Amino acid sequence: MPRGYVFDAYGTLFDTASIAADPALLALWRRKQLEYTWLRSLMGRWEDFWKVTEDALRYAARSLGKDVPIDDLMKAYLTLAPFPEVPAALDRLKGRPLAILSNGTRAMLDAALTSSGLSGRFAQVLSVDAVRIYKPSLRVYALATDALGLKAEEILFVSSNAWDVAGAKAFGYRVCWCNRLKAPMDELGVQPDLVVQRLDQL
Amino acid sequence: MPRGYVFDAYGTLFDTASIAADPALLALWRRKQLEYTWLRSLMGRWEDFWKVTEDALRYAARSLGKDVPIDDLMKAYLTLAPFPEVPAALDRLKGRPLAILSNGTRAMLDAALTSSGLSGRFAQVLSVDAVRIYKPSLRVYALATDALGLKAEEILFVSSNAWDVAGAKAFGYRVCWCNRLKAPMDELGVQPDLVVQRLDQL
Repeated sequence: MPRGYVFDAYGTLFDTASIAADPALLALWRRKQLEYTWLRSLMGRWEDFWKVTEDALRYAARSLGKDVPIDDLMKAYLTLAPFPEVPAALDRLKGRPLAILSNGTRAMLDAALTSSGLSGRFAQVLSVDAVRIYKPSLRVYALATDALGLKAEEILFVSSNAWDVAGAKAFGYRVCWCNRLKAPMDELGVQPDLVVQRLDQL
Repeated sequence: MPRGYVFDAYGTLFDTASIAADPALLALWRRKQLEYTWLRSLMGRWEDFWKVTEDALRYAARSLGKDVPIDDLMKAYLTLAPFPEVPAALDRLKGRPLAILSNGTRAMLDAALTSSGLSGRFAQVLSVDAVRIYKPSLRVYALATDALGLKAEEILFVSSNAWDVAGAKAFGYRVCWCNRLKAPMDELGVQPDLVVQRLDQL
């Protein structure tokens, strides 16, 4: 049994596809959001996730030739719906320390946790802001072992993002891929220790 | 006038879409190829571009449920067609040092240069293999200034990849974005010094 659990936030606890907008826009927005985190990390040109998310939305809107309400869509990030099984899944893990390790800013995470009623479930809410580089930099994954005072191999790291699972595994965590969409695993030379389709299968 | 020119290879000199395969496969292959370079660089899990390119092809084939001839498609990377205007565009720059700075391995680049008849046009053919990290790490961009013995601001860096243009600009090059598809510029806080649609407009 793991001695602690670390969860990714966006796509894992919170459903970024729950935002009311054109699916093509949502898909390109999310893709560019991630690309920009990776590119900025490699270029050494840090901007926080709020800025990167808005930049990605602006690109997606321009690319698709759509006039979109930027401010309204950005605000939707503060009230993202959790996946339906999340509250029950977290209930079952009570008694062991749970943490969030996310690209999001602390303000974004706090807003989404409050809005979804999940505040107080997590012993630690950790943002990459502390290291000013994004996942899957190994410096990010070290934040949660430090905060929980546990070794990586004592922790189960849970993410729906295959590349995040790969990064956490490269750091040394035991990893669970929540593969909601039955996608193939990314070819990054790393396999998850555990695969589930919903978080209540943990 | 720039004192030297540095060109990206794939997508800039060589047309990766010239491979005879399903367009959806080519698009996902290319997208995953780039993603894997960024992710491996951030995770510190280096594999060379030949391996990454094959991994990306395997993922794309599996994701689309297609049975594709992996070996044949990989070999196509060794004989990529140059964009039609490339030979004439390079002719016009004769007399100034030209370099290639690419994610590709030296073997991949040599094969494509030989196949396309462009060998001998470049004073330097530089691969990221020397630093074992991919673009847009600034360590990559330093390879070309070192090799040409010029300052970044004396060089025009030319790429069709907007994110590569952003990385080169962040390093200090004067940059030209060859925007063949009239795409919007990526929102990475960087603007190109020059935009062309074809390389013979340089």
